Parts: sequence; structure tokens; C-alpha cells
Amino acid sequence: MDKLLYGVAYYDEYMPYERLAEDIRMMKEAGINTVRIAESTWSTHEPQNGVFDFTSVDRVLDAMHEAGIHVIVGTPTYAIPAWMVKEHPDVLAVTSAGRGKYGARQIMDITHPVYLFYAERIIRKLLERVHKHPAVIGYQTDNETKHYETAGDNVQLKFVKYMRKTYGTLEKINHQFGLDYWSNRIDSWEDFPSVAGTINGSLGAEFARFQRGLVNDFLAWQVAIVNEYKQPGQFVTQNFDYEWRGHSFGVQPSVDHFAAAEPFDIAGVDIYHPSQSELTGAEIAFGGDISRSVKRSNYLVLETQAQAFPQWTPYPGQLRLLAFSHIGSGANMVAYWHWHSIHNSFETYWKGLLSHDFLPNPVYKEACTIGADFKRLSPQLTGLVKKNKIAFMISNEALSAMEWFKLPDGKNYNDVVRWLYDEFYRMNAECDFIQPSSPYLHEYDLVVVPALYAVSDEALLALNEYVKGGGHVLYSFKSGFADEQVKVRTVQQPGILSEACGIGYSMFVTPDAETGLTGGLFPEGGAGTVNSWMELLVPGTAEVLASYDHPEWGNYAAATRNTFGEGTATYVGCMMDAADLEAIVRDTLQTAGLWTEQQEYAFPLIVKSATTREGTPVRFYYNYSGKQLAGVRPVKGGTELLSGSAVSVDGELELAPWGVQIILEQE
Amino acid sequence: MDKLLYGVAYYDEYMPYERLAEDIRMMKEAGINTVRIAESTWSTHEPQNGVFDFTSVDRVLDAMHEAGIHVIVGTPTYAIPAWMVKEHPDVLAVTSAGRGKYGARQIMDITHPVYLFYAERIIRKLLERVHKHPAVIGYQTDNETKHYETAGDNVQLKFVKYMRKTYGTLEKINHQFGLDYWSNRIDSWEDFPSVAGTINGSLGAEFARFQRGLVNDFLAWQVAIVNEYKQPGQFVTQNFDYEWRGHSFGVQPSVDHFAAAEPFDIAGVDIYHPSQSELTGAEIAFGGDISRSVKRSNYLVLETQAQAFPQWTPYPGQLRLLAFSHIGSGANMVAYWHWHSIHNSFETYWKGLLSHDFLPNPVYKEACTIGADFKRLSPQLTGLVKKNKIAFMISNEALSAMEWFKLPDGKNYNDVVRWLYDEFYRMNAECDFIQPSSPYLHEYDLVVVPALYAVSDEALLALNEYVKGGGHVLYSFKSGFADEQVKVRTVQQPGILSEACGIGYSMFVTPDAETGLTGGLFPEGGAGTVNSWMELLVPGTAEVLASYDHPEWGNYAAATRNTFGEGTATYVGCMMDAADLEAIVRDTLQTAGLWTEQQEYAFPLIVKSATTREGTPVRFYYNYSGKQLAGVRPVKGGTELLSGSAVSVDGELELAPWGVQIILEQE
Amino acid sequence: MDKLLYGVAYYDEYMPYERLAEDIRMMKEAGINTVRIAESTWSTHEPQNGVFDFTSVDRVLDAMHEAGIHVIVGTPTYAIPAWMVKEHPDVLAVTSAGRGKYGARQIMDITHPVYLFYAERIIRKLLERVHKHPAVIGYQTDNETKHYETAGDNVQLKFVKYMRKTYGTLEKINHQFGLDYWSNRIDSWEDFPSVAGTINGSLGAEFARFQRGLVNDFLAWQVAIVNEYKQPGQFVTQNFDYEWRGHSFGVQPSVDHFAAAEPFDIAGVDIYHPSQSELTGAEIAFGGDISRSVKRSNYLVLETQAQAFPQWTPYPGQLRLLAFSHIGSGANMVAYWHWHSIHNSFETYWKGLLSHDFLPNPVYKEACTIGADFKRLSPQLTGLVKKNKIAFMISNEALSAMEWFKLPDGKNYNDVVRWLYDEFYRMNAECDFIQPSSPYLHEYDLVVVPALYAVSDEALLALNEYVKGGGHVLYSFKSGFADEQVKVRTVQQPGILSEACGIGYSMFVTPDAETGLTGGLFPEGGAGTVNSWMELLVPGTAEVLASYDHPEWGNYAAATRNTFGEGTATYVGCMMDAADLEAIVRDTLQTAGLWTEQQEYAFPLIVKSATTREGTPVRFYYNYSGKQLAGVRPVKGGTELLSGSAVSVDGELELAPWGVQIILEQE
Repeated sequence: MDKLLYGVAYYDEYMPYERLAEDIRMMKEAGINTVRIAESTWSTHEPQNGVFDFTSVDRVLDAMHEAGIHVIVGTPTYAIPAWMVKEHPDVLAVTSAGRGKYGARQIMDITHPVYLFYAERIIRKLLERVHKHPAVIGYQTDNETKHYETAGDNVQLKFVKYMRKTYGTLEKINHQFGLDYWSNRIDSWEDFPSVAGTINGSLGAEFARFQRGLVNDFLAWQVAIVNEYKQPGQFVTQNFDYEWRGHSFGVQPSVDHFAAAEPFDIAGVDIYHPSQSELTGAEIAFGGDISRSVKRSNYLVLETQAQAFPQWTPYPGQLRLLAFSHIGSGANMVAYWHWHSIHNSFETYWKGLLSHDFLPNPVYKEACTIGADFKRLSPQLTGLVKKNKIAFMISNEALSAMEWFKLPDGKNYNDVVRWLYDEFYRMNAECDFIQPSSPYLHEYDLVVVPALYAVSDEALLALNEYVKGGGHVLYSFKSGFADEQVKVRTVQQPGILSEACGIGYSMFVTPDAETGLTGGLFPEGGAGTVNSWMELLVPGTAEVLASYDHPEWGNYAAATRNTFGEGTATYVGCMMDAADLEAIVRDTLQTAGLWTEQQEYAFPLIVKSATTREGTPVRFYYNYSGKQLAGVRPVKGGTELLSGSAVSVDGELELAPWGVQIILEQE
Repeated sequence: MDKLLYGVAYYDEYMPYERLAEDIRMMKEAGINTVRIAESTWSTHEPQNGVFDFTSVDRVLDAMHEAGIHVIVGTPTYAIPAWMVKEHPDVLAVTSAGRGKYGARQIMDITHPVYLFYAERIIRKLLERVHKHPAVIGYQTDNETKHYETAGDNVQLKFVKYMRKTYGTLEKINHQFGLDYWSNRIDSWEDFPSVAGTINGSLGAEFARFQRGLVNDFLAWQVAIVNEYKQPGQFVTQNFDYEWRGHSFGVQPSVDHFAAAEPFDIAGVDIYHPSQSELTGAEIAFGGDISRSVKRSNYLVLETQAQAFPQWTPYPGQLRLLAFSHIGSGANMVAYWHWHSIHNSFETYWKGLLSHDFLPNPVYKEACTIGADFKRLSPQLTGLVKKNKIAFMISNEALSAMEWFKLPDGKNYNDVVRWLYDEFYRMNAECDFIQPSSPYLHEYDLVVVPALYAVSDEALLALNEYVKGGGHVLYSFKSGFADEQVKVRTVQQPGILSEACGIGYSMFVTPDAETGLTGGLFPEGGAGTVNSWMELLVPGTAEVLASYDHPEWGNYAAATRNTFGEGTATYVGCMMDAADLEAIVRDTLQTAGLWTEQQEYAFPLIVKSATTREGTPVRFYYNYSGKQLAGVRPVKGGTELLSGSAVSVDGELELAPWGVQIILEQE
Repeated sequence: MDKLLYGVAYYDEYMPYERLAEDIRMMKEAGINTVRIAESTWSTHEPQNGVFDFTSVDRVLDAMHEAGIHVIVGTPTYAIPAWMVKEHPDVLAVTSAGRGKYGARQIMDITHPVYLFYAERIIRKLLERVHKHPAVIGYQTDNETKHYETAGDNVQLKFVKYMRKTYGTLEKINHQFGLDYWSNRIDSWEDFPSVAGTINGSLGAEFARFQRGLVNDFLAWQVAIVNEYKQPGQFVTQNFDYEWRGHSFGVQPSVDHFAAAEPFDIAGVDIYHPSQSELTGAEIAFGGDISRSVKRSNYLVLETQAQAFPQWTPYPGQLRLLAFSHIGSGANMVAYWHWHSIHNSFETYWKGLLSHDFLPNPVYKEACTIGADFKRLSPQLTGLVKKNKIAFMISNEALSAMEWFKLPDGKNYNDVVRWLYDEFYRMNAECDFIQPSSPYLHEYDLVVVPALYAVSDEALLALNEYVKGGGHVLYSFKSGFADEQVKVRTVQQPGILSEACGIGYSMFVTPDAETGLTGGLFPEGGAGTVNSWMELLVPGTAEVLASYDHPEWGNYAAATRNTFGEGTATYVGCMMDAADLEAIVRDTLQTAGLWTEQQEYAFPLIVKSATTREGTPVRFYYNYSGKQLAGVRPVKGGTELLSGSAVSVDGELELAPWGVQIILEQE
């Protein structure tokens, strides 16, 4: 990719009146150089079974090409036409709520041959049509693909075969999944019940893993088809998204991003986040760090918010701050969903860059400045290289297992992940993401392991080895508790990790409202309270970083650190307020030799580092507040790219409210 | 109608032992002169398919007639017998929750021929029996009729035919409803999917309109049957009810009261409301104003509460206050649901005038005084004429559309309606209600338009014309946003209204907790905060009544007024606390020349005006508080009707806690 | 039973590796002398239809016998194997949510012949195998049996036949159940609708009674089978449980414990309760008092918590306090659910005595001291005799009726029961439980009657007679309101009770937030507010114990006492804060001559009395707080059993935090 892509999703099909020429004029004015099309409009392109109409695709491609705007073509398979459901009602996925109803997108059974037949046909018809068009730079398969909880009889049958293939015998399954419990033992493959009603968390988590496999299979199948048409210079991407809590929040439960990303040329992602006074940038860093990690390369932000919801419409300056935040995390593209605001149907209040009136508005006008800067700074900011020394280890298996076994107050895996991640974010300690099986473990100085609840012996032994060899690990509570079939380990906890961590525990309780920390790093007591979960840690060789301040559990440790071989293993046995976690993270960074100048800054002054493709360091300074930040000393001097002015290391940066500055550092 | 009707619903069928003579004796003592019967007891009157038993009807009619008590006979069609459902289970409506179960009332598909066949037969049998009985003064068709969300396959088929009849072609539907979105385009009538699963708000709102049409059809069909039997002097009414939030609250979502009321001779209504220390009288005024408006005449309160729920059992004085509040709004009848309290089943704790013990209780004793006063004051208070200069414009279409597109905090259409209406109520500024298509628009000096979200061009142009010709309009936010198919207008908002309002806006956001008002009418700042919704108004020719007090949105107007032709259009772009809204309403009333003596009184002192049939002004003073109100100067002197004493304009009224006084004014 | 049983549930089938010998070794160390087995593992014992495998039963019986540990064998019928559901999907109960799904326990239709056929076969196969084994001391039928809301077509058919048998004619049913209401009248047995959708509370409550009858039938059927095998010295018990609100809370809605317990030799129960700082012991007393009352004898605590949930893991000392609290209520057995913590499936975080690591942990170590004490004190503490002078009258009928007619704030029957019971508990006024039909009424000096909402005339007349003859009754509001078909009485309330209570009321309301008490026992006003419900009592011959402090309802009484014949009837017409209720209860105890030395102690110092089998008084002192209680004067002197030391009546007990002392009193 030779430049920063600045894009929008564009739906010629949705336009209430002829807009194409005027829209392109306004896009050019804004510096938009890429549009994404076609992924949502199967019924327009195939209004009847076997009748194809690509008029809107053709005309958009031609007009964009003429204007010099690139096009990413999406395969329109995530929203199925009415005719298909009328002819074959069973393409609708059966979930625990029963057979779905027609209307929404993402309602089909992605394993159903009827769906797959029609999907393949529309993909081939579309790609035959567009693949040699000079406007086309790449393809997106489907959109925000998940398994949509498909769990009907046909899927259950597949699952039984999967179980037989994976485990061989029912004897092994009965044992490993604990099926004697509550009379769930299965003695004959024919008796294998639908897991729709299972109360067995091991089986439930295995089914979730199987369902994630369906997504991998489906996407690989699509990519293989698209690859038949892909021309040199074109790419294939997928629009991954994150656990949704009204905005992008955490690890995606339904998709293993690492495995699913394999067949793709480049990772794409959509990132949505709180805005206005709630804006922190954390979701941009979090989502970007995962997206960059799945293929260990730059990524495309295929969707992010322009105006979006009434509570998200950006304050002046925020849209610009956001765009450069994506770039600073390693994105090569920032694209808005979407160009205009939709006049009918469902997402009318998920507004685009333009309002429903298509007039230039303050947000659009701010986009014009971003487009101009992207164009000017593409030589420096395209293909930025990030080299982080810290990795977060995340796991879909742990996530699924904790859905079955949440913390007593309802918190789940992603609550723990974000609790830790956000602390690193606020301290400007940048991170990559790896999975437990990662071959890249040894590239990092510190590995942060949140709630690695269900995990194989091998992965835990590798972590012990990693510490022994000089690595540093920061574990949270619940790590190592169960194996990969969510069978709790039968040895003292934290099981295999005990060796490196130098601790043991047999009991865990819920904190009182008054439970705090004391001792160790907290000689005067912690600043806040312990919440959600507390393990009653008994240190062996480990040093105690904190004990519980509690009349009954005061003898137990709350956080420990053990030197094991050449490295250290820090174990945090409870959830605590951010201020106290910060003290532990700070101490861990210092122990691991990772406390750098960048940690002298802290939220709301966010700092990100990278190097240009040529190897020149570049550092981003973001003001995530509505207050002017004056007198900020830069880490190093150099050229401030947005203004073009020189900045001395002894100088002072002045960051406007929601402002950003970028220094190309002099070595 | 030659007198005030004071009534109860009476269920001889429910009596645990023979009560008729004793009940009539107690009714006479209380001044009850009308009972409503038969609407709930189909299974008693037709215990088996085709076997009829009107014993209880006959004996009640005869006994009431002998006692000089009138009877309104209800057609018993809203609660179906068990035998019908056993024979034809598919008479139960299919809703989005699936096929209903037998047990409750209002569970059938009102379009189903099986139901219609049996309903017609029981109506004809009953009316043949009773229509010439001298006790019968009128009929009520069915009860609180709605469509009960009927949406099964047969109803979906009707809807497709309705769509074809209404719009002609799928091409037009695809365009106007935006069906390209999410691949919902329909290319063939056979493919038209059930809208049960639709995510298209335009389609969903159209289906809601279609469902309301089913109610109109059903009621007109019943009235036509009843009219075949109706004798001179008898009337046909329907018991309309309002959006229910534990009590009557707002515009009825499932019924277009104006259209549905057309075939009827007189409008009937049930009104239930908070009581005890929560009593304000607002629901009585609101429900009464709509009921009076639908047929532009007096109306019957067919049901209101006597003791009702434990939280509603009236304080001493309240029952009396309530009765005269209905009369002051133009009711010709006040009837309680119900005479006795039911000993079994479901509504045991929805108590009647009598408790389960049938003994005279404090509430019954208060009713006795009301009955006596009604009898004595009938010559003055029957057929009161209300002439209001203010109209609220309400719309089922806007309501349905906003169910799809609620305010971000979940508020809906009726929240906005009541937010505005209650302010007028508290200021004693009495109102009528009209619909957007109203031919009576020009009879009013001020039209208040809450959240007229989905509305035709014609209606908006008519409003602009109205202002130009000297009318005054007070708009709330969201008015004019979408057309009658809930397609957002493609011009700058508030679209067609912009011309008269002299403003434009392209953006709208959610207020912070601290957002307030400043400037214009609020030189010192508003008294409260802005909530739920704020449009970022840019004034053109309009005067700014208020701007936002907010660090980022402070440049935008919050409320404006524009002089357009001979009139003014006031536009309120946000929801605000009552105290601040009051300032705007007050200013608007003054601008429209509608600030009268009556506005010198305010809640809890509620004042209502009317004229007798002979044209003499009569004014009601209600004390909606538990405190004595002394030293109240009347607007005009005259005769206080309840006491019969003369009141001078210089005199002072003394209103007991929860008291009422009525002055027949000397001209 | 010749000794205290100290037990655990033991699941050899669930063990992740061979544990039997080691587990037995650890049990012996802890003094465990009884295990319960086999009730949950049908699929292990019958892995295929007709293929039986009792290996785990055999080996556990043999090993336990060798170790001198008794075994209670459960019939494994509450959790059905997968093969049964595959072959006969209709064994799954149909509830109001539709047909169940396989997975959980307690999902079958307990009336289904397929289920009954297989259940009988596995019971007989198992009992044939074990009944002569010397380790077996008894049997548990099924487990926590309920009707699981079974309500499918076959059950509805049974219900119609039950109704015909019970009531004879539809005419009687129509009248007594008020079926004319809302057209629910039934004229032909074939038309009897499923009650799944009924809105008739009388019918709904009758169906609930019928469903409880299904449980009685099912258990009696099981006991009859088991009795065919039972050997001399063996017993049959059932594990009853209570209304569950995250812990044992109140009267079991689905089972009539008194009727269901009849065929059994001894009552068993599971009791779970809040712990740690929330521990009060109230659930142990409440559940124990009912369990002791159902067969008027000692009972077995078949399940109670060891570590259980993170929020329940006991503080040091609490496990011991709990064990002796059960004994002090008359239990002959305390058994934990369960021995180890389960490594897979659903209840992984419902921990046993051992954690997942099987290591001795602090809770296990505390159990070791309990086991030793149980062994040593068995001669004194086995078969303790309780003679209480107070009885609570409870009723499943009242409970079901109040599910239909809850208090306005959602409180139900058990909220009222516990509100009263807990007050007696805190005052150390020990109670038995009886039903309205009890033949033992006259054995008590005071009967407490919470919300006896639905009850026959006969039972009320008996209560009046009881008072007349010198008994004392404390009624709460809502007592006597409706008859046994939940038909509200047609006389002034409290109906038949009015005679003994000397009061009447026709109205009841919801209290304001400020409503308090005044007068009578509260000359300075009550300490708290009235909540949830208030009846406007009009005293006749009764003395007023409290009036309402309310501007509108101040004339009405809130609580009264009437002398009637030789006794008194105290009536509490409203729900009030505990402090005010305490004043009324105290006064009632004093009036009834039941104020003893034991009432000089109060929570958190809980005192329980009993006599040994030989008739020696024994008194338990429990410290339900985390604070040392020093200087406690004993009621009488004697021997403190745990320490073996003598205690003089002038001496002082010192109770450790969560401590217990037991004095064998010198007469």
C-alpha cells in the first residue's frame, strides 16, 4: 500500500435520489480516496433467484475510477434476499431461541448448502464482473462474519461428528467432559443429545469452539473463491469486529481472529467507541493492537464512526484526533461507516459523514482537513512499523469458559482483559496481542495474561519456561484454573503455574465492600477496594506485593511476585480499583526494565511510538481531553508533521483540546 | 342527553349470591341512574355453541327499568368462550410471541371469519332481545377494542394486498420504504416476507397503520350491525382507552381514535389515573380533551376508578373532585368500573364502589353526595360547551414511527406529548386535540405540535400556511423529520417547516448531565437541565429564545421563534425541565394573545371554563392538593352551584382539601 | 438412630482419578460416618436402555463398610439419561415455556408412564443389588422432588378428571371459581381449556394444588417400591428443600411438605443460607423447625453447605457454629453437599468440603473438630426432644393464592412468613410449624398466622374456637380473606376471624413513604415506617395496639388485640419495620405468658432449648457475630459439653466470635 487510504462505505443503492456525481465531488473535496461498496445489497444485485443486476456496481466503479477513487468490493453474503427465504425457509439459522425470522441481516445458517450454493453463485457473478475493473483495489468477504448462534439439528449432527473426530471415543468424552454428572453420560453416538439444553460448561465451551471453527471454514471457503479472481495488486480482507457493548469492547466471542485471519491478505476491522466527553481512545488502541497482531502487520479500519449516534457526534477536533489515533496504532486506512445517513429502515440514527440533508456539516468539514493531511503525510505515515515489548495473551477458549463460569458479580473474561489493558493504555505502555499457542512468545519482555481460565498444559508449561528463560509475566486471578476442556485441574491452584509463581491457593471468596489491600507495595493501605473476586493466596517462594485488608482473610496474600530462573512471575489474585492496579503494573514494568520515557506521560496525554517504513522514529501525542495541554516536553525533538515546524527536545508542545501532534524524531 | 349520567358497570353474572334487589336499592341511594352490562360475559349468554341464555340480561333490564335506572348494553365480543377456542383454536391471534393461549380477554384475531361469524350471531341474538326494552338507552360495541397485535399468516396476506392496493407497485414500495437496505428488496409479490421479523421501521410503521385500520373496520362492522337494531333515542358508543402505563397515559398506539370514532354516535372513554397523594387531574383533562375532540362534542366516561387499587383508593373528597373534573372537561357521564369488587379470578384487587363485603363504605358514601349533586345540577351541567383556542396536534403515525426511533434514553412519542400537555394543564390553558389532516386547524389561535416525526408534505405545508395567515404554532423537536412512510426528508431539517420556523439544523446530540439553557428568555440561565435530546439549531430569520449552555455546543440555539407572515412559529429543539418549558409556553401564550385571567391560576389550583347549553359561562375551581386553599379570588362572580350561594368577583373562594367549587358566572 | 450422623454426599462416579481409598482415609480423619450416594447418576448405572452397571455402587458400599461408614442410597430418578430422551422425547415436561430441552436434571414429566416405567426398573435393579448390604442404613427417594411445572396436554387431562372428581359438576366449578368472569364459563367437560393461559387465580391456585398432589403421588409410589426392599433398621427419607432465593428462604411452593412426608420414615432436608458476614442462622432454624414439624420428630440435614460459593465459604469458626445450630434445632444428621468439588459441568463453583485439589484445607480441618465432637457428644445430643409452645401456621394454599395476588410492591407469602418468623428467631422464641388443618393446634399456647390468605371456613372457625378456649393467636394482615378456592369472602373482613379479633375492615391501601405508627404500644410513635400494605382497621371490641400516623388514614387502627373467651387474638393489619414489629411480638408473648428467661437474650446471641432423650435439659448458646461475647450469664448452670467444664448459674459464658457453647443443665 503506497498511501494512507481515507474512505467511506458508499451505498448508491440506498440513495433517495441521483447523487453519484455530487457525492464524488464532495468526496474529492474531503480527500476521500477509497470507497467500500456492495457488501449489504444482495437483493439489489440479484432481485430474483438467478436474475442479476449489477447496474449500481458498474456505474459506481466507472465513476469512482474516473475520479481516481479506489473501490473495495464486498461480497454481499451477510444479508440474504427475501426470495431465498421464501423458497427455502430452512436457510434461517436455528438458535436457542428457535428458527429465526426474516428481516435482519446475519440470520442464516452459514453451514447450509442452500445458502452456500446461492452465496457462491452471487460471489462468482459479482467478481466476474468487477475483478478486472481498474478501480478495484481489493475485496472484502462478507461482513462482520460470525456464526449467528446457528445450532439447529444439522449443526448438532456436524458437532457429533466433530466430537468423534476430535476425541475418538465416548469413553474419553465422558471422562474429559465429566458427563457422569447429573446423568449426562453418553453410551452410544446415536444418543448424543443436542447441546442446546446442556448445562455442562465443558461441552458448552467445546460447542462454542466448534462454532468458531464454522466461521473459519466459511471465511476460508469465501477467500478461496475470491482468490480465483483476485488480480495482482488486489487484496482480500475481512471486516472483523469486537465484543459489542453498545460499542467495540473486547475480544470477539464468536470468532478466533487469529485463525480466521489466516487466509486473508490483510486484516480489516471496525471500531466504534464512546465519544464526546466519554472519549478516551482506549478502544482504538485495543482494537488496533489486536488487528495489527493477527497478521503482525498494518491493518485497515474498514469502519469507524463519523457522526453516528446522538451521543457520539464528535466535538470539534475529535474526528481528527480519532483518525490520527488509528494511524498511530498502525492502521493504513481509516474509513467511515458511512458516507451519507440512511433515510429508511433501521440505522437511520447511525449517521454518516453527511447528515440526511447531504449538506456540508461541521463533521464533514473537519474530514476535509484530515483528507488533506493524509494525502500530504502519506509518505511518512503509511506502513508504520510498531515494535512492542509487551504482549497481552488472549484466548477465545478462556472467554467461552468464563461465559459459563462468570465472576459472582457477573463480570466476564473481557471485563478482566479490559481492566488490565486499559491500565497499560493509560500508562502509554503499548502492547501486542498473542494467543497461548503463539510462537512469538519469546519476542516479548513482558507477557500480560488476564484470566487465562481454560488452557492446555502445554501452554502453561511454555509460560513457565518463558519465565525461567528470563521473561516476565503478569498473571491475573483465575489463570491456569482449568484445562482446555474446562476441566478444573486437580492439583493445588494455580496449578502448573504454581511452579513459576511460587504460590498456592485452595480457596477463593467474594470480597466484602470494605476489603482493601495492605502491605507490600501498599504500606499505608491501598487507595481503593477489592471487588468481584479474591483468591486466598498462600505464598511459597513468592514475595508478597499486597495482602488483604480484611478481618478474616487478612492472612492471605492478594498479589505476589516470584523470581523463577531468570525471570519473574507476578500474580494478581483479585480485582482491585484502577489506582491500586496501577501501582502493581508500574512496579511490574520497572521490574521488567520496561519503564521508558513514554511512561512519564499518562492519560489524558496519550503517546504512541512507531517507525516509518524507512526506520525513522515517529511519535504521536494525543490530547484526550477538552482542556488545552500546554508546556508538554517532547520525548525527542524533530519535525512536527501536521504543522511542518521543528520541535526541539527542550521545546514545549501545546496540544489543543482534543488535539494531536506528530513528531518525526531526529535520531 | 337531558341529564348527567352517573353510572356503574354491573355484573349480575359475577355475583356470589342473589344481590339484584339490594344492589338496586343501594344504587338508588347513591343516585346511580345508569348501568352498563353484558360486555364481558359471552360465555354466560352463549354457554354452548348456538345455545343462548339471556336470563341475567332480562332480569337486570326489567329490574333496572322498574327502578328508573338506564342501561347501556355492551356487545360481549371482547372475551371469547372456551368452546369457540376448543372448536377453532386458530381464532386465537398469532402475535410476534406466537399463537396465544386461552384464558385472558382480547386474545382473538379480530379478522378471523370464525370469530366474526360467532360475534355477529351473539350480537344479533342479544340485540334482538334487548333493543326494544325501555331500559336501554344505548349500546357499547365490544370494549377497549384494539388489534391485539394480530399478525399471523392470514393477516400478513391481507397486508400484502393492502400494500399493493395502497402503493401499486413493488418498485414504488422498494423506493419509498428503502428496501434495498440490508438486502430487503422485494422483486415479486409472492416473495413479500412476513413483517413479523422486519427491521425496517418504515415497513413496521406501515404495518402498525394497517393494524389500526383493522380496528376501524372491525368497529364499523359492529356498529353497522347494531344500527340495524338501534331505536330512536338510543345511541351507540365505544369505550376507547389510552396508552397504558399502569394508568391512562397518552395517545393510544393501537387505535386511531378519530377515525375509529366516526361511525359512533358519541365517544366513550375509560380514564384511570394515579390517586391519593399522586393525584393531579392531568389524565382526566388529557383523556377528556381527546374524547371531546374526536367527535367535537360531549362524551361519556364509561369507566373510571372508584376504589380500584390499594394505591388509588381515594382520600376523602377525592372521588367528588374527580367526578366534577370529568364534568368540567365536557363529560356527560361518569361511570365507575365497577359496582362491586370481584371475588374471584384476575381483577380482585381492582375494587369497585363497593368492597367485597357489599357494605356501605366511605367511598360509596361520598358517591351518594355526588349522585345527589349530579341530579340537582343536571340542568346546568349537562351538555356543557367548551370553546378552546388552543389545539394539540397528535398523530398515530408519528407515534408508531417513534416506537421504531425512540429518543436515546428510551422516551417515546407520548413522553413528549405529555411533557408539553402537562405544562399547559398546569397553566390552566385548556386545549382541544386535532390530527395533522384536520379541517379545523383554522379555528385555533395556537397549535401545539409535539414531535410530529412522521407526517406528509401536505400537512406541513398546511401548517406553514396557517402561520402565514396569522396562526401561531409551537413545535417540539423532531417535528417534520420524516414523511408519512417514515422516510427521513432529504433536505435540511426541520424540512418543510424550516420556511415558517426560520431555522435549520443538520446535527442533533444527546445532552450531557450539565447541559442547560442560556440567553433569550433565560438571561440568567435556565432553572434546570436539558435532557434526552437536543437539536443543534442554526437560526436564519428566527429569534433565539434560548441557546445551549454547553462548552462545545454553546453556539447553537435551543429554542427559537420566527415571525412568518401574520403569525409566529416557535420551535423547541430540546427536552428541558418543566420550569424552563413553562417560561417558553408562557411567552408563547403571551405572543399568541392567549394569556387570560385563567392563567393567573396555576396547579394545584386547576380552573376549567365552559358555557351551559344556554350559553351561560360556568367556571370550575379544583383544589388538587391536600391543603385548604383560602382567599382565592374568582375570575368572575356568580352563583356557586354546589352550595347555591352567591359569590362576588371581589369575594374569596375557600377550597377545601381536594375540594371543588363551580361558579355559574353572571355576565 | 443411636448417634449423630456426620456425612457428605459422595460421587465416586465424578472422580477425575482413583480416589476411593484416600477419600475414605480423609473422611475417617474428619469423623465422617455416613455418605449419601447414587441419587444423581442414573446414566452411569444404566448407560444404555436395560444395560446396568453398578460397579461404582458396589465398590463404594464395600469400601465404606470396611471403613465403618454408613451409606444412604439414593434412587437415581431425578436426572434422566440421554438415551431415554432420544427414544421418547415426550418424557420431557411441557411447561408454560413449552417442551423442555435435554441437559439439566428435573426436566421430566413425573406423571409420564415412559418415565415411570424406566424409573421403577432402575429403582428395583439398584435396590435388589444393595438392600442387604450391611453398609446401607437407609434410602433417599429421588432428590429435591418437585413437579417441575409439568403442565402438558396429558397433565391438563388429568387435571380435568381431578376437577370432576373433586367438584362433581361444572355448575359448581363455574360458581365457586367465578368462571363467568371474562367469559371463562365452561359448559361442557370437553371444552375445559388448558389452564396454561388462565387468568383466573382460583383456577391457577387449584392447578398448583393439583400439581403438588402429583408430587405426593410420585413420592408415595417410590416409597412403596423401596419399602418392598427395605430391611429392618433401614429408613426411607426424602430430601425436601425450601423456596429458593439464591438460598433456602421460605415455604416450598411446589410441595406440601406435611403431606409429602407422610410415607417416609424420617424427614430429610437441605438447607443453604447466606454466610460470612451475612450469616444469621435464621434459615437453619426456619428450615429445621419445619423439618422437625412435618413428622414431629428429629430429621436429617441431608445437604448443607461446606465451602459452597465464593460468598459463602465460611469464616473460621462458622462451619462449627452451623453444625451445632442444626443439632440444636433437632437434627440427627448434618451432611455436606458434598465431599469434593466438581471439576466439570455446572456446579464447579458450588464447592464441597474439599476443594478441587483434594487437599486438607481450613474448612476441612474445622470439620475434623466437628466430627470428633459429634462422636463424643452423640450420647447426649442424639434424638434431642424439642417442646415448643409456639406454632407458626403455614399453608401452601395461601402461598399459591398470594402468587396470584401479591402485595402491591411484589412481596409474596414467604416475605410475610419470614418477616414474622425472623422476629421470633431474633427473640429466641422457638417455634413449631403446623398447617391450618392441624390436629395439634391445642398443644400450643400461641399460634402465629402469617397471611393465611386462602383458607377454609372450618380452619378459621377452629382458630376462633382455639382462642375462645384460651389460646392466643397473632394474625397478620390478609388472613382469612379468601376461601380455599381463593374466592374472597363476601362478608366484612377479616371475615370469620372478625368474631375473635373484634375488628372489621372494608378498605386497604398502600402506605406512603411517611406512614408510621402511633398510639397504643407506640405513644411516642413507631420507630420505623409502614410498608407494602395497610388495612384500614375499625376496632369493634378490640383494643388498639397501634394506629396509623397518616394525614388521611389516621382514624384507622393498624394493630389490635381482642380478648375472646379465654384467649386473645392479636391482629397486625400492616407490614412494618422490624423494630416496631418487635414491640408487638414482645407484647404478644407477654400477654400469652410466654416471656421466659430465654427471651432475655437476643440476636446475635441465639439460644435454643431441648431435652435429651433421657429428659435432661440442654441449652445451646450461639454467637452469630464476629465479635467476642463476654460476660454472658447462663439461664441455668450445668456442664458445658464442648469443653466438659462445669458452669455455674452465676458464672459467665464467654463466646468466641462465631462460637457456640452447650450446657447440659442441672435440674
